[in-house]
Amino acid sequence: MNPIGVIRTPFKTKKECPIQPVYAKEAAGRVEVFPEFAPGLKDIDTFSHIYLLYALDRAGRIEMIRATFLDDDPHGIYASRHPCRPNGIGLSIVALVGVEHAGIEGTALMVQGIDVLDKTPLLDIKPYIPKFDCFPDASEGWTVDKAWKGKPSGRE
Amino acid sequence: MNPIGVIRTPFKTKKECPIQPVYAKEAAGRVEVFPEFAPGLKDIDTFSHIYLLYALDRAGRIEMIRATFLDDDPHGIYASRHPCRPNGIGLSIVALVGVEHAGIEGTALMVQGIDVLDKTPLLDIKPYIPKFDCFPDASEGWTVDKAWKGKPSGRE
Repeated sequence: MNPIGVIRTPFKTKKECPIQPVYAKEAAGRVEVFPEFAPGLKDIDTFSHIYLLYALDRAGRIEMIRATFLDDDPHGIYASRHPCRPNGIGLSIVALVGVEHAGIEGTALMVQGIDVLDKTPLLDIKPYIPKFDCFPDASEGWTVDKAWKGKPSGRE
Repeated sequence: MNPIGVIRTPFKTKKECPIQPVYAKEAAGRVEVFPEFAPGLKDIDTFSHIYLLYALDRAGRIEMIRATFLDDDPHGIYASRHPCRPNGIGLSIVALVGVEHAGIEGTALMVQGIDVLDKTPLLDIKPYIPKFDCFPDASEGWTVDKAWKGKPSGRE
């Protein structure tokens, strides 16, 4: 696994960082894709939303069962989106609002609704395709009546 | 990155394997989680759908721009879900239909709508949470009027 780019966001610390894009709708970011991978972005501008997969490079201690940012009850790490997990791969769905071709410096994607720390290593980008990815009838599970405990400043 | 388990499916070869869960609604699989990670599954049974992240361990040659399983026009790999990609991480959303606690042999999740090759190394599981993950108004991009070119047997 080698980074294909880097994610630039306004969030320099975990305390500032929202826990999900849905809580960061206004947050703008810049996804810089290194030149050798930039050709792979052809036609990405036909999509309104994309998945970002990235390395959770500043996550803390991994615990199999722990409290989350949504409540104080302990949940299994695989029943949670908590960043401290084995194989720390982060997943965010963000809105794609522009593409900036910067020649030998690669290509940058302007995105909105980003919940990622600044300078996070980018691993993959996939198009979000509602016919494959949208399950409105899926259960909210244990999160059904939970709201994010803290605004950004409340994050541990 | 080390596998946390293994995904068992009816699909032994790429030719047999559907390209997306939506084309494999009836396909049942078994996600075996190794014992040391099994405690992390606590409360996963409250969700109806989960993300599986896995290693695309039998993908072929990586090309930045290529034809896809949906059409013959070349698209950038990041505008496509094609499995042959840098940092080969696969992403599938599947229905969780049961949990089987098998003690020292770990825990198995029974899933439906699986589009993964048998014996694929599992990297991560995340709950699918509609309030975070469902964007019904997202664009279908270049895929809007495309259907899967082949039934399973048509896959290259």
